[in-house]
Amino acid sequence: MLVIYLVAITAEAMSGALAAGRRHMDIFGVAVIAFVTALGGGTIRDVILGHYPIGWTQHPEYVYLVLGAGLLTTVIARYMHRLHRIFLALDAMGLIAFSLIGSNIALALGYPTVVVIMSGMITGISGGILRDVLCNQVPVVFRRELYASVSLAVCALFLILKAQGVGMNLNTAICFTSGLSLRLLAIHFHWRLPTFTYRQRWD
Amino acid sequence: MLVIYLVAITAEAMSGALAAGRRHMDIFGVAVIAFVTALGGGTIRDVILGHYPIGWTQHPEYVYLVLGAGLLTTVIARYMHRLHRIFLALDAMGLIAFSLIGSNIALALGYPTVVVIMSGMITGISGGILRDVLCNQVPVVFRRELYASVSLAVCALFLILKAQGVGMNLNTAICFTSGLSLRLLAIHFHWRLPTFTYRQRWD
Amino acid sequence: MLVIYLVAITAEAMSGALAAGRRHMDIFGVAVIAFVTALGGGTIRDVILGHYPIGWTQHPEYVYLVLGAGLLTTVIARYMHRLHRIFLALDAMGLIAFSLIGSNIALALGYPTVVVIMSGMITGISGGILRDVLCNQVPVVFRRELYASVSLAVCALFLILKAQGVGMNLNTAICFTSGLSLRLLAIHFHWRLPTFTYRQRWD
Repeated sequence: MLVIYLVAITAEAMSGALAAGRRHMDIFGVAVIAFVTALGGGTIRDVILGHYPIGWTQHPEYVYLVLGAGLLTTVIARYMHRLHRIFLALDAMGLIAFSLIGSNIALALGYPTVVVIMSGMITGISGGILRDVLCNQVPVVFRRELYASVSLAVCALFLILKAQGVGMNLNTAICFTSGLSLRLLAIHFHWRLPTFTYRQRWD
Repeated sequence: MLVIYLVAITAEAMSGALAAGRRHMDIFGVAVIAFVTALGGGTIRDVILGHYPIGWTQHPEYVYLVLGAGLLTTVIARYMHRLHRIFLALDAMGLIAFSLIGSNIALALGYPTVVVIMSGMITGISGGILRDVLCNQVPVVFRRELYASVSLAVCALFLILKAQGVGMNLNTAICFTSGLSLRLLAIHFHWRLPTFTYRQRWD
Repeated sequence: MLVIYLVAITAEAMSGALAAGRRHMDIFGVAVIAFVTALGGGTIRDVILGHYPIGWTQHPEYVYLVLGAGLLTTVIARYMHRLHRIFLALDAMGLIAFSLIGSNIALALGYPTVVVIMSGMITGISGGILRDVLCNQVPVVFRRELYASVSLAVCALFLILKAQGVGMNLNTAICFTSGLSLRLLAIHFHWRLPTFTYRQRWD
């Protein structure tokens, strides 16, 4: 799980660096967006749950990893479209790892079920939301192929299997396999949630 | 007060869902924006005051209510312009309820007067600010008819009456009546605060 | 140091008010943006470090100062371009004061070195980031002349001198002089960090 977590924050940091590059930021901006994308979700979760000290403040090596990944991305960016599919798979693994980690933390703190699920989703998606807000665009997670829904499904499945007495390792493996399949199928077939459009401006 | 609070978070969730619809978000985006608009202000207040656990984490029913209200809005949106005036009145009630609740929490924690007033205002307006930031627009609260000023007036009136020894129930009733009147008059007559315009770009 | 801190939050509040004026906000919006720009960085730092109660909640006079500075700016704005250079110097002093204060707080709480440096940088730059997010633009700190880098350099220099046994007052004086010189030289010669530009949109 730790290995997958490290892969996850690296993939998220790279996605942040690419977003910063689309806004022509300087390398400091790249480092900040990489950091916020990778570790911002866990930070928001810890602040909301009152779970101190916040994870990365106790693990300087995570900070160095995401800053290094962000800066490295500026060098290898020109080759990254060739790694397109690998990158999307790493990002999907990251989403699921974040979701499971977030759920487990809220569970250990004794929060009610709906908060446990939301804790997983907050960990999974709010780093990307912060990235998009800092890059001055509407968060893509609110519009693209099933992404947050995968996080929701994984967290719910994890809790259901846990209630059935399935062991932690088997449970994690099942959640990973199903979540990753769902996300990759969603990307391949462009599965999206229905969209809501509203035009009036009276309020 | 609890009934008014529930009405308030429902009205705020609906306003969030409509804003999400103007950005063509999917139903997950609608649910997130509804949640953030309704419960984000109280979350920011609790984080700033160090008031843990945060309200909604102990009341899963609030979470279900705002998510339900947000999703329901996507179904009934086409009829909502007919309910225009009712909606604005509910929203005004919500603003006042949030302001009084926020002030009381800071008061109970022993914060100084200016923080008590700011706690009321943060609870009242920051959900809407988060909604607008996530929808990538300048927060309307910084530009429209008296809104935050109503929150400020209600919080100040509440503290003044309290210092005069007016009982809690009477005080709440007076604040509600005056705040609601002020807000509805402001909407009717388009009362606004003076605007500050600055064009130079040297800093 | 307290005097410099007060100058710093005043300069930051004025920079917030000018940004609000560029968005034609009303005077309430001006007050909020001034407050957030001046005290938002310290608030984010305290929330991340779990350092409660948050500074300004115990110092109502800081709140009055920044609100007053923000509103005063709307009156004197037409003369401010003549004070251009003074304003930039005050802003640079603010950046350095914020950085040193932020570092010292994390140090006193026993956080690791990288968190101490980040605490200084968060205090120095995140008020301006919040200001730009609320004004719906990409944060200037990610693109303009050396700014965050000055914060980083000052925090690192402070820690190095401290490890060498240099006394607090001398250390602060050295950091101030070097940081201020670096920032003013960067403004004068338009020193910038290299920029990263990325155009592909496949992720």
